[in-house]
Amino acid sequence: MLIEGTNYIGYSTSARGSEKFQAFSPSGNSFLPGDFTYATNEEFELTVALAEKAFANYKEISAKEKAIFLEAIAEEIMALGDALIERCVAESALPVARITGERGRTCGQLKMFAQLLREGWWVDARIDTAQPDRQPVPKSDIRRMLIPVGPVAVFGASNFPLAFSTAGGDTASALAAGCPVIVKAHPSHPGTHELVSKAIIKAAQRTEMPEGVFSSLYLSNEQSIQLVQHTVIKAVGFTGSRHVGMLLYKAAAERTEPIPVYAEMSSTNPIILMEGVLKTQPEKIAKELTASVNLGVGQFCTNPGLVFAIESDATSAFLKEFSNQFSSSTPGTMLNRNICSSYTKGANILSNTDGINILAKASKTAAGERYEASPLAFTVSSKDFVANEQLANEVFGPLTLIVLCKNAEELHRTLLSLEGQLTATLHSTAEDEQALKPVIDIITQKAGRIIFGGYPTGVEVCHSMHHGGPFPSTSDARYTSVGTAAIYRFVRPICLQDFPNHLLPEALQNHNPLNIIRLVDGQWTKEVIAG
Amino acid sequence: MLIEGTNYIGYSTSARGSEKFQAFSPSGNSFLPGDFTYATNEEFELTVALAEKAFANYKEISAKEKAIFLEAIAEEIMALGDALIERCVAESALPVARITGERGRTCGQLKMFAQLLREGWWVDARIDTAQPDRQPVPKSDIRRMLIPVGPVAVFGASNFPLAFSTAGGDTASALAAGCPVIVKAHPSHPGTHELVSKAIIKAAQRTEMPEGVFSSLYLSNEQSIQLVQHTVIKAVGFTGSRHVGMLLYKAAAERTEPIPVYAEMSSTNPIILMEGVLKTQPEKIAKELTASVNLGVGQFCTNPGLVFAIESDATSAFLKEFSNQFSSSTPGTMLNRNICSSYTKGANILSNTDGINILAKASKTAAGERYEASPLAFTVSSKDFVANEQLANEVFGPLTLIVLCKNAEELHRTLLSLEGQLTATLHSTAEDEQALKPVIDIITQKAGRIIFGGYPTGVEVCHSMHHGGPFPSTSDARYTSVGTAAIYRFVRPICLQDFPNHLLPEALQNHNPLNIIRLVDGQWTKEVIAG
Repeated sequence: MLIEGTNYIGYSTSARGSEKFQAFSPSGNSFLPGDFTYATNEEFELTVALAEKAFANYKEISAKEKAIFLEAIAEEIMALGDALIERCVAESALPVARITGERGRTCGQLKMFAQLLREGWWVDARIDTAQPDRQPVPKSDIRRMLIPVGPVAVFGASNFPLAFSTAGGDTASALAAGCPVIVKAHPSHPGTHELVSKAIIKAAQRTEMPEGVFSSLYLSNEQSIQLVQHTVIKAVGFTGSRHVGMLLYKAAAERTEPIPVYAEMSSTNPIILMEGVLKTQPEKIAKELTASVNLGVGQFCTNPGLVFAIESDATSAFLKEFSNQFSSSTPGTMLNRNICSSYTKGANILSNTDGINILAKASKTAAGERYEASPLAFTVSSKDFVANEQLANEVFGPLTLIVLCKNAEELHRTLLSLEGQLTATLHSTAEDEQALKPVIDIITQKAGRIIFGGYPTGVEVCHSMHHGGPFPSTSDARYTSVGTAAIYRFVRPICLQDFPNHLLPEALQNHNPLNIIRLVDGQWTKEVIAG
Repeated sequence: MLIEGTNYIGYSTSARGSEKFQAFSPSGNSFLPGDFTYATNEEFELTVALAEKAFANYKEISAKEKAIFLEAIAEEIMALGDALIERCVAESALPVARITGERGRTCGQLKMFAQLLREGWWVDARIDTAQPDRQPVPKSDIRRMLIPVGPVAVFGASNFPLAFSTAGGDTASALAAGCPVIVKAHPSHPGTHELVSKAIIKAAQRTEMPEGVFSSLYLSNEQSIQLVQHTVIKAVGFTGSRHVGMLLYKAAAERTEPIPVYAEMSSTNPIILMEGVLKTQPEKIAKELTASVNLGVGQFCTNPGLVFAIESDATSAFLKEFSNQFSSSTPGTMLNRNICSSYTKGANILSNTDGINILAKASKTAAGERYEASPLAFTVSSKDFVANEQLANEVFGPLTLIVLCKNAEELHRTLLSLEGQLTATLHSTAEDEQALKPVIDIITQKAGRIIFGGYPTGVEVCHSMHHGGPFPSTSDARYTSVGTAAIYRFVRPICLQDFPNHLLPEALQNHNPLNIIRLVDGQWTKEVIAG
């Protein structure tokens, strides 16, 4: 499939600019075919104007039609066939099986939001009926539901070139909410981005969506800031580093009109190993933890970068077992050159920090020419850990730091010192239960998701998933970027008072034509309202 | 009742500072008894530390106990009796009947949140049960609910000394959510604030709440910024001017950890009068609109400051009728000296702006020594209105500007030029319906609440109320400051994966001990889960 390298502005392709770049294959240590052209400022403005115009029409399109559009995107992505998989593998160095799975997840998310639109209850309809005879003043009829906020800017992730990128969760949830999307293409996988952009646009045309419901651009850093600050943009979705996420957040805070910035940034995803589990299942934990740290060359936002345990004989035995297991890890090519050099730098800093001990490393040497990362496991005392706040920072890659505490009190204090996390994980047995309760209490304040006896990698896409958490794991702990609740990032309530029934949106009409559950006079019900 | 003028730090009173101020009665043009002492920095830090400590305990207290606490606050406020009413009337110049009604609303809000806590469904429990046999990977058991964010700073309003102040909607919803509250006392009604603070603390002690669940301080502007920027504070509620609201918003944006700032600021609450209603009900509309503009000397955030109509004979006849009605308005004392001087300044600017015509004014002269505002109604062409964006700014007080449009297209364009609003109001008859639809479409994008055939003043406190809207009416259009949904400002989701049933919070346990509606495997149900 020919790579054109153009911007996708509504239904047109456009490449009027002179600045270009190429995609790079880290595993092949070579540039890939295709010249990608940065958008000019005129192209940028045209795109934003189209999104604004599209919003006026797109928000009026029925939920059913939007659902068909989302499903069509999934179909068109599948229709790209092996060309998508091949390009994505070349650009990301992720294996075929992983990318194939990620494509399935991406299409699954689109279909999940289509299903949510068909069910319709997500608009959170609330109705308080009139009481004309109430004293001292009559009560009005008041009805409330959620509506889309307007055009959304999406900044995709390097580590999920499909599921958190061009047609990923942010795009799917924004389109489901009724918001046009402008995607800033990730320079780490522009060819993948181009193929997916084409699929979305084909789906939009096929299902007769308004032009501008989706556009995508290659943008400079400066233009990225301009996008976040543009008056037409009403929300921002971002997945990436803390540094860039906070740049976008700060840029948005400078706007006249504040808008929400949903930045999913950095998390070390602490794992807490309780005494009982270390005594009874050291081999199992050592093996599973090694696998979780190394999954996808450690390039997950939920990668377990910190492990906590209280010193004991069982802990010493576990560390030995873990060291053995971990030494069999193998180096792997990272997503791109920047990520690889950041990893190497972070690993070197840790290796040369007083108090940090190397517990295990891969026996095989990482191949620099393939931008490989060498898995590393360290230990540190909780005293040294707390004294040097740099140690709590995320090192993105297959690296974990085991923090050894003297006793329960030190464990609690050390956990209290942590910043906010996407996840925290507990491993314990029944005998740990009393000791576990204060730990749960502390990490509930620190994390968005707590996993009992499992691993944080592998995020289920469902209604009850919360993939978010206190800062710096995200910029807004109230919202998730995974699961159906992700749609709430791109909506706001509208309240309609004393409206004639026929002028109300269907979700709020008396006879409940959508057959959705609603809060009517304080009761959740699907019943119709006499009127 | 003796006014002590101290800060309320947990269960202690404290006035170590040397800077003091007095309350002023605008209607009496005199200072009121009591010296109020600004907090020292030590007192400030002690208060914040107490709030942090209280959070650890308060969040664990059962919903039922929190409900009893909220109800006890309402009881203690009522127990203040006439002393509260008298002081509040003296400080605000609002009439006894209004303050008595506002006290009822304040207590009603507290009881409403108590009821919400007893019902329990507001935690938005979502459960996806495990599928251990799912291929290719087993599905975990995942459960999600809302939990409190932490200590909240509340900045009350001048124009609702009870319902939007010390024990107002922000405090009630934050306490209901499980968050300790620190109130920054409003200098316009410090005596009222002191009495209500005492009532809250009495209720907290009587119901054995942790010390620090509520504190209140007299703060300098600099300390107010410090409060918003303090690491312990996790959210801010504010009601007041756009200028101050945005100062707090910008201060929060400078924090390392972003937190939500819910600032309810400025709104001109456009009223759109369609041809049919002007033809058939000119007298009724003229009378009602006059009353709405003058209600509470125009000092409501929902005061109708802009009116839109298309020029016609009916419009001319209406303007004449409105002018007659409005001329019978009488001046009234404003809430405080600053508000009065701002009103006079804003009114003078409008009076001297080219293209603005005075349509009506009160025949009686405003008494400067009683800080009265003189009601004013102006007209302007939509052309002149759009050309001068200053004209769209809120002038807080009994003033309205009627914008006359040449035709429907000009009406639409003018409405499109407006900033975000708390409310918009439509007056129309059946014959207007075709012309009304594009108007509804435009104002849905501009406002948080749309009133059909009524007036924006008078905000019902209920489940479906949305008192919020696009910027600058608020800093966060996703949230309301009135009604049960106000609780969502102070919570975030927590997700628990594969937890043993007995370690789950009650809201998420299999047997549904709270008997709340939950989203279980995609179905909203109160059913128990087999487990």
